[in-house]
Amino acid sequence: MQTTDPARVLADLHQRLLDRRHADPARSYVARLYQQGEDKILQKVGEEAIETILAAKSGQADALVYETADLWFHCLVMLTLHDITPEQILSELARRFEQG
Amino acid sequence: MQTTDPARVLADLHQRLLDRRHADPARSYVARLYQQGEDKILQKVGEEAIETILAAKSGQADALVYETADLWFHCLVMLTLHDITPEQILSELARRFEQG
Amino acid sequence: MQTTDPARVLADLHQRLLDRRHADPARSYVARLYQQGEDKILQKVGEEAIETILAAKSGQADALVYETADLWFHCLVMLTLHDITPEQILSELARRFEQG
Amino acid sequence: MQTTDPARVLADLHQRLLDRRHADPARSYVARLYQQGEDKILQKVGEEAIETILAAKSGQADALVYETADLWFHCLVMLTLHDITPEQILSELARRFEQG
Repeated sequence: MQTTDPARVLADLHQRLLDRRHADPARSYVARLYQQGEDKILQKVGEEAIETILAAKSGQADALVYETADLWFHCLVMLTLHDITPEQILSELARRFEQG
Repeated sequence: MQTTDPARVLADLHQRLLDRRHADPARSYVARLYQQGEDKILQKVGEEAIETILAAKSGQADALVYETADLWFHCLVMLTLHDITPEQILSELARRFEQG
Repeated sequence: MQTTDPARVLADLHQRLLDRRHADPARSYVARLYQQGEDKILQKVGEEAIETILAAKSGQADALVYETADLWFHCLVMLTLHDITPEQILSELARRFEQG
Repeated sequence: MQTTDPARVLADLHQRLLDRRHADPARSYVARLYQQGEDKILQKVGEEAIETILAAKSGQADALVYETADLWFHCLVMLTLHDITPEQILSELARRFEQG
Protein backbone atom coordinates (compact mmCIF):
# COMPACT_ATOMS: atom_id res chain seq x y z
CA MET A 1 0.00 0.00 0.00
CA GLN A 2 1.38 3.43 -0.89
CA THR A 3 -0.05 5.06 2.23
CA THR A 4 -0.93 4.39 5.84
CA ASP A 5 -3.31 7.37 5.90
CA PRO A 6 -6.31 5.86 7.73
CA ALA A 7 -8.70 7.74 5.46
CA ARG A 8 -7.29 5.91 2.45
CA VAL A 9 -6.93 2.42 3.89
CA LEU A 10 -10.30 1.01 2.80
CA ALA A 11 -10.09 2.45 -0.73
CA ASP A 12 -6.51 1.21 -1.10
CA LEU A 13 -7.48 -2.24 0.14
CA HIS A 14 -10.35 -2.40 -2.35
CA GLN A 15 -7.93 -1.52 -5.17
CA ARG A 16 -5.46 -4.14 -3.95
CA LEU A 17 -8.21 -6.78 -3.91
CA LEU A 18 -9.15 -5.90 -7.49
CA ASP A 19 -5.50 -6.25 -8.53
CA ARG A 20 -5.04 -9.60 -6.79
CA ARG A 21 -8.35 -11.13 -7.77
CA HIS A 22 -6.87 -12.88 -10.77
CA ALA A 23 -3.35 -13.38 -9.39
CA ASP A 24 -1.73 -16.82 -8.95
CA PRO A 25 -3.69 -18.67 -6.21
CA ALA A 26 -0.48 -20.42 -5.18
CA ARG A 27 1.07 -17.08 -4.23
CA SER A 28 -1.84 -14.96 -3.03
CA TYR A 29 -4.27 -15.66 -0.17
CA VAL A 30 -6.79 -13.31 -1.79
CA ALA A 31 -6.58 -15.02 -5.19
CA ARG A 32 -7.02 -18.35 -3.41
CA LEU A 33 -10.20 -17.11 -1.69
CA TYR A 34 -11.65 -15.88 -4.98
CA GLN A 35 -10.76 -19.16 -6.64
CA GLN A 36 -12.54 -21.14 -3.89
CA GLY A 37 -15.67 -19.10 -4.57
CA GLU A 38 -18.31 -17.06 -2.76
CA ASP A 39 -19.35 -19.70 -0.19
CA LYS A 40 -15.77 -19.96 1.07
CA ILE A 41 -15.59 -16.16 1.39
CA LEU A 42 -18.93 -15.99 3.24
CA GLN A 43 -17.78 -18.81 5.51
CA LYS A 44 -14.77 -16.67 6.43
CA VAL A 45 -17.01 -13.64 7.12
CA GLY A 46 -19.07 -15.79 9.49
CA GLU A 47 -16.03 -17.34 11.19
CA GLU A 48 -14.38 -13.97 11.76
CA ALA A 49 -17.63 -12.60 13.25
CA ILE A 50 -17.63 -15.48 15.79
CA GLU A 51 -13.95 -14.90 16.59
CA THR A 52 -14.66 -11.17 17.04
CA ILE A 53 -17.45 -11.96 19.53
CA LEU A 54 -15.21 -14.38 21.45
CA ALA A 55 -12.37 -11.81 21.47
CA ALA A 56 -14.74 -9.19 22.93
CA LYS A 57 -15.78 -11.63 25.68
CA SER A 58 -12.11 -12.36 26.43
CA GLY A 59 -11.64 -8.67 27.28
CA GLN A 60 -8.29 -8.54 25.43
CA ALA A 61 -8.24 -5.29 23.43
CA ASP A 62 -5.42 -6.35 21.09
CA ALA A 63 -7.26 -9.56 20.13
CA LEU A 64 -10.43 -7.56 19.52
CA VAL A 65 -8.61 -5.12 17.21
CA TYR A 66 -7.06 -8.04 15.35
CA GLU A 67 -10.28 -10.02 14.89
CA THR A 68 -12.37 -6.99 13.90
CA ALA A 69 -9.76 -6.12 11.25
CA ASP A 70 -10.00 -9.72 10.02
CA LEU A 71 -13.80 -9.44 9.85
CA TRP A 72 -13.73 -6.16 7.92
CA PHE A 73 -11.02 -7.51 5.60
CA HIS A 74 -13.15 -10.50 4.61
CA CYS A 75 -16.17 -8.19 4.23
CA LEU A 76 -14.12 -6.18 1.71
CA VAL A 77 -13.23 -9.39 -0.16
CA MET A 78 -16.97 -10.21 -0.29
CA LEU A 79 -17.94 -6.68 -1.38
CA THR A 80 -15.30 -6.62 -4.12
CA LEU A 81 -16.71 -9.89 -5.48
CA HIS A 82 -20.05 -8.07 -5.80
CA ASP A 83 -18.48 -4.94 -7.35
CA ILE A 84 -19.34 -2.88 -4.27
CA THR A 85 -16.84 -0.29 -3.03
CA PRO A 86 -16.11 0.56 0.62
CA GLU A 87 -17.30 4.10 -0.16
CA GLN A 88 -20.80 2.72 -0.70
CA ILE A 89 -20.78 1.25 2.84
CA LEU A 90 -19.44 4.51 4.31
CA SER A 91 -22.09 6.54 2.44
CA GLU A 92 -24.83 4.25 3.78
CA LEU A 93 -23.44 4.69 7.31
CA ALA A 94 -23.37 8.49 6.88
CA ARG A 95 -26.86 8.61 5.36
CA ARG A 96 -28.43 6.60 8.14
CA PHE A 97 -26.74 8.52 10.89
CA GLU A 98 -27.81 11.90 9.57
CA GLN A 99 -31.40 10.75 9.88
CA GLY A 100 -30.95 9.30 13.37
CA MET B 1 -22.89 14.28 11.40
CA GLN B 2 -21.18 17.46 10.19
CA THR B 3 -19.77 15.82 7.09
CA THR B 4 -20.50 13.13 4.54
CA ASP B 5 -16.82 12.94 3.58
CA PRO B 6 -16.31 9.15 3.40
CA ALA B 7 -12.89 9.52 4.95
CA ARG B 8 -14.41 11.03 8.09
CA VAL B 9 -17.47 8.81 8.47
CA LEU B 10 -15.97 6.21 10.82
CA ALA B 11 -14.31 8.79 13.07
CA ASP B 12 -17.49 10.89 13.19
CA LEU B 13 -19.57 7.82 14.00
CA HIS B 14 -17.22 6.88 16.84
CA GLN B 15 -17.57 10.42 18.27
CA ARG B 16 -21.34 10.25 17.94
CA LEU B 17 -21.41 6.90 19.78
CA LEU B 18 -19.34 8.38 22.61
CA ASP B 19 -21.80 11.31 22.83
CA ARG B 20 -24.88 9.09 22.87
CA ARG B 21 -23.52 6.40 25.17
CA HIS B 22 -25.09 8.00 28.22
CA ALA B 23 -28.10 9.57 26.48
CA ASP B 24 -31.71 8.73 27.39
CA PRO B 25 -32.35 5.08 26.39
CA ALA B 26 -35.97 5.97 25.64
CA ARG B 27 -34.83 8.33 22.88
CA SER B 28 -31.66 6.77 21.49
CA TYR B 29 -31.17 3.31 19.96
CA VAL B 30 -27.47 3.52 20.77
CA ALA B 31 -28.07 4.43 24.44
CA ARG B 32 -30.53 1.53 24.62
CA LEU B 33 -27.93 -0.90 23.26
CA TYR B 34 -25.34 0.28 25.81
CA GLN B 35 -27.90 0.00 28.59
CA GLN B 36 -28.73 -3.59 27.60
CA GLY B 37 -25.05 -4.45 27.90
CA GLU B 38 -22.26 -6.14 26.00
CA ASP B 39 -24.00 -9.47 25.31
CA LYS B 40 -26.86 -7.66 23.55
CA ILE B 41 -24.35 -5.73 21.42
CA LEU B 42 -22.41 -8.90 20.52
CA GLN B 43 -25.69 -10.64 19.68
CA LYS B 44 -26.39 -7.81 17.20
CA VAL B 45 -22.89 -8.18 15.67
CA GLY B 46 -23.59 -11.90 15.16
CA GLU B 47 -27.10 -11.35 13.76
CA GLU B 48 -25.93 -8.72 11.30
CA ALA B 49 -23.13 -11.03 10.11
CA ILE B 50 -25.73 -13.73 9.35
CA GLU B 51 -27.96 -11.20 7.55
CA THR B 52 -24.94 -9.99 5.55
CA ILE B 53 -24.19 -13.56 4.44
CA LEU B 54 -27.84 -14.14 3.44
CA ALA B 55 -27.92 -10.81 1.56
CA ALA B 56 -24.80 -11.84 -0.38
CA LYS B 57 -26.45 -15.14 -1.31
CA SER B 58 -29.59 -13.26 -2.46
CA GLY B 59 -27.47 -11.44 -5.04
CA GLN B 60 -29.19 -8.11 -4.28
CA ALA B 61 -26.48 -5.44 -4.15
CA ASP B 62 -28.57 -2.87 -2.27
CA ALA B 63 -29.42 -5.37 0.48
CA LEU B 64 -25.74 -6.30 0.76
CA VAL B 65 -24.70 -2.64 1.14
CA TYR B 66 -27.40 -2.14 3.78
CA GLU B 67 -26.56 -5.24 5.83
CA THR B 68 -22.79 -4.69 5.69
CA ALA B 69 -23.33 -1.11 6.94
CA ASP B 70 -25.45 -2.55 9.77
CA LEU B 71 -22.67 -5.04 10.63
CA TRP B 72 -19.96 -2.38 10.67
CA PHE B 73 -22.20 -0.03 12.69
CA HIS B 74 -22.68 -2.61 15.43
CA CYS B 75 -18.93 -3.39 15.32
CA LEU B 76 -18.31 0.33 16.05
CA VAL B 77 -20.78 0.18 18.97
CA MET B 78 -18.82 -2.83 20.31
CA LEU B 79 -15.42 -1.18 19.76
CA THR B 80 -16.53 2.05 21.47
CA LEU B 81 -17.61 0.00 24.51
CA HIS B 82 -14.02 -1.29 24.64
CA ASP B 83 -12.49 2.18 24.11
CA ILE B 84 -11.14 1.15 20.71
CA THR B 85 -11.23 3.69 17.86
CA PRO B 86 -11.96 2.90 14.19
CA GLU B 87 -8.47 4.25 13.42
CA GLN B 88 -7.00 1.31 15.33
CA ILE B 89 -8.84 -1.12 13.03
CA LEU B 90 -7.74 0.79 9.91
CA SER B 91 -4.12 0.84 11.13
CA GLU B 92 -4.23 -2.92 11.71
CA LEU B 93 -5.63 -3.41 8.18
CA ALA B 94 -2.88 -1.19 6.72
CA ARG B 95 -0.13 -2.88 8.74
CA ARG B 96 -1.14 -6.36 7.69
CA PHE B 97 -1.53 -5.50 4.04
CA GLU B 98 1.90 -3.89 3.83
CA GLN B 99 3.41 -7.17 4.91
CA GLY B 100 1.29 -9.30 2.58
CA MET C 1 -46.97 -34.15 21.98
CA GLN C 2 -48.28 -37.54 23.10
CA THR C 3 -45.08 -38.47 24.88
CA THR C 4 -42.19 -36.95 26.77
CA ASP C 5 -40.03 -40.01 26.13
CA PRO C 6 -36.69 -38.40 25.20
CA ALA C 7 -36.13 -41.00 22.53
CA ARG C 8 -39.26 -39.87 20.70
CA VAL C 9 -38.95 -36.11 21.10
CA LEU C 10 -37.16 -35.36 17.84
CA ALA C 11 -39.40 -37.61 15.74
CA ASP C 12 -42.52 -36.18 17.40
CA LEU C 13 -41.31 -32.65 16.82
CA HIS C 14 -40.67 -33.38 13.15
CA GLN C 15 -44.24 -34.72 12.81
CA ARG C 16 -45.63 -31.67 14.59
CA LEU C 17 -43.70 -29.36 12.24
CA LEU C 18 -45.14 -31.21 9.23
CA ASP C 19 -48.66 -30.79 10.68
CA ARG C 20 -48.23 -27.08 11.38
CA ARG C 21 -46.42 -26.16 8.20
CA HIS C 22 -49.60 -25.10 6.49
CA ALA C 23 -51.50 -23.95 9.60
CA ASP C 24 -52.79 -20.38 10.07
CA PRO C 25 -49.73 -18.08 10.38
CA ALA C 26 -51.72 -15.83 12.72
CA ARG C 27 -51.99 -18.66 15.24
CA SER C 28 -48.80 -20.69 14.83
CA TYR C 29 -45.20 -19.50 15.21
CA VAL C 30 -44.08 -22.41 13.04
CA ALA C 31 -46.53 -21.60 10.25
CA ARG C 32 -45.36 -17.98 10.43
CA LEU C 33 -41.73 -19.03 10.02
CA TYR C 34 -42.55 -21.17 6.99
CA GLN C 35 -44.59 -18.34 5.50
CA GLN C 36 -41.68 -15.91 5.91
CA GLY C 37 -39.50 -18.32 3.95
CA GLU C 38 -36.14 -20.07 4.13
CA ASP C 39 -33.97 -16.98 4.70
CA LYS C 40 -35.96 -16.08 7.81
CA ILE C 41 -35.55 -19.64 9.13
CA LEU C 42 -31.79 -19.65 8.42
CA GLN C 43 -31.50 -16.25 10.10
CA LYS C 44 -33.06 -17.80 13.22
CA VAL C 45 -30.61 -20.75 13.08
CA GLY C 46 -27.74 -18.26 12.98
CA GLU C 47 -29.16 -16.07 15.75
CA GLU C 48 -29.75 -19.01 18.07
CA ALA C 49 -26.19 -20.25 17.46
CA ILE C 50 -24.86 -16.84 18.59
CA GLU C 51 -27.15 -16.86 21.65
CA THR C 52 -25.97 -20.40 22.48
CA ILE C 53 -22.33 -19.26 22.35
CA LEU C 54 -23.08 -16.24 24.57
CA ALA C 55 -25.02 -18.45 27.02
CA ALA C 56 -22.03 -20.83 27.26
CA LYS C 57 -19.73 -17.88 28.01
CA SER C 58 -22.16 -16.66 30.70
CA GLY C 59 -21.64 -19.94 32.55
CA GLN C 60 -25.37 -20.24 33.32
CA ALA C 61 -26.38 -23.87 32.72
CA ASP C 62 -30.12 -23.19 32.49
CA ALA C 63 -29.60 -20.50 29.83
CA LEU C 64 -27.34 -22.87 27.88
CA VAL C 65 -29.97 -25.65 27.93
CA TYR C 66 -32.63 -23.17 26.81
CA GLU C 67 -30.61 -21.66 23.94
CA THR C 68 -29.32 -25.03 22.67
CA ALA C 69 -32.94 -26.29 22.59
CA ASP C 70 -33.85 -23.16 20.61
CA LEU C 71 -30.99 -23.81 18.17
CA TRP C 72 -31.96 -27.45 17.63
CA PHE C 73 -35.64 -26.50 17.27
CA HIS C 74 -34.89 -24.07 14.45
CA CYS C 75 -32.58 -26.66 12.87
CA LEU C 76 -35.56 -29.05 12.80
CA VAL C 77 -37.72 -26.34 11.18
CA MET C 78 -34.99 -25.94 8.53
CA LEU C 79 -34.60 -29.70 8.01
CA THR C 80 -38.35 -30.22 7.66
CA LEU C 81 -38.42 -27.53 4.95
CA HIS C 82 -35.86 -29.67 3.08
CA ASP C 83 -37.76 -32.94 3.71
CA ILE C 84 -34.97 -34.21 5.95
CA THR C 85 -35.89 -36.18 9.10
CA PRO C 86 -34.09 -35.99 12.46
CA GLU C 87 -33.34 -39.71 12.04
CA GLN C 88 -31.10 -38.82 9.09
CA ILE C 89 -29.04 -36.53 11.33
CA LEU C 90 -28.82 -39.17 14.07
CA SER C 91 -27.76 -41.83 11.54
CA GLU C 92 -25.03 -39.53 10.23
CA LEU C 93 -23.83 -38.93 13.81
CA ALA C 94 -23.83 -42.70 14.49
CA ARG C 95 -22.07 -43.50 11.21
CA ARG C 96 -19.31 -41.01 11.77
CA PHE C 97 -18.69 -42.00 15.34
CA GLU C 98 -18.41 -45.69 14.52
CA GLN C 99 -15.53 -44.87 12.21
CA GLY C 100 -13.84 -42.50 14.67
CA MET D 1 -20.82 -47.11 19.50
CA GLN D 2 -22.57 -50.33 20.45
CA THR D 3 -25.78 -49.39 18.69
CA THR D 4 -27.11 -47.50 15.70
CA ASP D 5 -30.55 -47.22 17.29
CA PRO D 6 -31.42 -43.58 16.57
CA ALA D 7 -33.02 -43.21 19.97
CA ARG D 8 -29.73 -44.04 21.66
CA VAL D 9 -27.34 -42.08 19.45
CA LEU D 10 -27.26 -38.85 21.46
CA ALA D 11 -26.89 -40.59 24.83
CA ASP D 12 -24.16 -42.88 23.44
CA LEU D 13 -22.34 -39.91 21.94
CA HIS D 14 -22.45 -38.08 25.27
CA GLN D 15 -20.94 -41.15 27.00
CA ARG D 16 -18.26 -41.40 24.32
CA LEU D 17 -17.37 -37.72 24.81
CA LEU D 18 -17.04 -38.25 28.57
CA ASP D 19 -14.73 -41.23 27.93
CA ARG D 20 -12.54 -39.36 25.46
CA ARG D 21 -12.39 -36.07 27.32
CA HIS D 22 -9.11 -36.96 28.99
CA ALA D 23 -7.72 -39.21 26.23
CA ASP D 24 -4.44 -38.50 24.43
CA PRO D 25 -4.93 -35.29 22.36
CA ALA D 26 -2.52 -36.67 19.77
CA ARG D 27 -4.91 -39.54 19.04
CA SER D 28 -8.38 -38.11 19.61
CA TYR D 29 -10.03 -35.12 17.91
CA VAL D 30 -12.37 -34.77 20.89
CA ALA D 31 -9.54 -34.77 23.44
CA ARG D 32 -7.77 -32.16 21.29
CA LEU D 33 -10.86 -29.92 21.31
CA TYR D 34 -11.16 -30.18 25.11
CA GLN D 35 -7.45 -29.43 25.49
CA GLN D 36 -7.77 -26.31 23.32
CA GLY D 37 -10.50 -25.07 25.64
CA GLU D 38 -14.02 -23.68 25.56
CA ASP D 39 -13.42 -20.80 23.13
CA LYS D 40 -12.13 -23.25 20.49
CA ILE D 41 -15.23 -25.43 20.99
CA LEU D 42 -17.59 -22.42 20.75
CA GLN D 43 -15.74 -21.26 17.63
CA LYS D 44 -16.50 -24.66 16.08
CA VAL D 45 -20.21 -24.39 17.06
CA GLY D 46 -20.33 -21.00 15.30
CA GLU D 47 -18.44 -22.21 12.21
CA GLU D 48 -20.65 -25.26 11.79
CA ALA D 49 -23.78 -23.07 12.10
CA ILE D 50 -22.50 -20.91 9.21
CA GLU D 51 -21.67 -24.00 7.13
CA THR D 52 -25.15 -25.39 7.86
CA ILE D 53 -26.75 -22.16 6.61
CA LEU D 54 -24.61 -22.19 3.44
CA ALA D 55 -25.43 -25.88 2.85
CA ALA D 56 -29.17 -25.10 3.12
CA LYS D 57 -28.77 -22.29 0.56
CA SER D 58 -26.88 -24.67 -1.76
CA GLY D 59 -29.96 -26.89 -1.88
CA GLN D 60 -27.85 -30.06 -1.55
CA ALA D 61 -29.62 -32.37 0.92
CA ASP D 62 -26.58 -34.56 1.61
CA ALA D 63 -24.44 -31.53 2.49
CA LEU D 64 -27.19 -30.22 4.77
CA VAL D 65 -27.42 -33.56 6.63
CA TYR D 66 -23.63 -33.62 6.99
CA GLU D 67 -23.28 -30.04 8.25
CA THR D 68 -26.24 -30.26 10.66
CA ALA D 69 -24.70 -33.43 12.14
CA ASP D 70 -21.42 -31.52 12.52
CA LEU D 71 -23.26 -28.66 14.27
CA TRP D 72 -25.07 -30.98 16.70
CA PHE D 73 -21.86 -32.93 17.36
CA HIS D 74 -20.00 -29.79 18.42
CA CYS D 75 -23.03 -28.73 20.49
CA LEU D 76 -22.73 -32.05 22.35
CA VAL D 77 -18.99 -31.41 22.91
CA MET D 78 -19.94 -27.99 24.36
CA LEU D 79 -22.74 -29.41 26.52
CA THR D 80 -20.53 -32.18 27.91
CA LEU D 81 -17.97 -29.54 28.95
CA HIS D 82 -20.77 -27.94 30.99
CA ASP D 83 -21.96 -31.30 32.45
CA ILE D 84 -25.24 -31.03 30.52
CA THR D 85 -26.73 -34.20 28.99
CA PRO D 86 -28.55 -34.43 25.64
CA GLU D 87 -31.61 -35.62 27.62
CA GLN D 88 -31.81 -32.16 29.20
CA ILE D 89 -32.06 -30.58 25.75
CA LEU D 90 -34.67 -33.11 24.61
CA SER D 91 -36.71 -32.53 27.80
CA GLU D 92 -36.63 -28.77 27.21
CA LEU D 93 -37.79 -29.32 23.61
CA ALA D 94 -40.64 -31.58 24.82
CA ARG D 95 -41.65 -29.16 27.61
CA ARG D 96 -41.85 -26.17 25.32
CA PHE D 97 -43.76 -27.95 22.62
CA GLU D 98 -46.38 -29.25 25.02
CA GLN D 99 -47.16 -25.68 25.95
CA GLY D 100 -47.21 -24.45 22.33
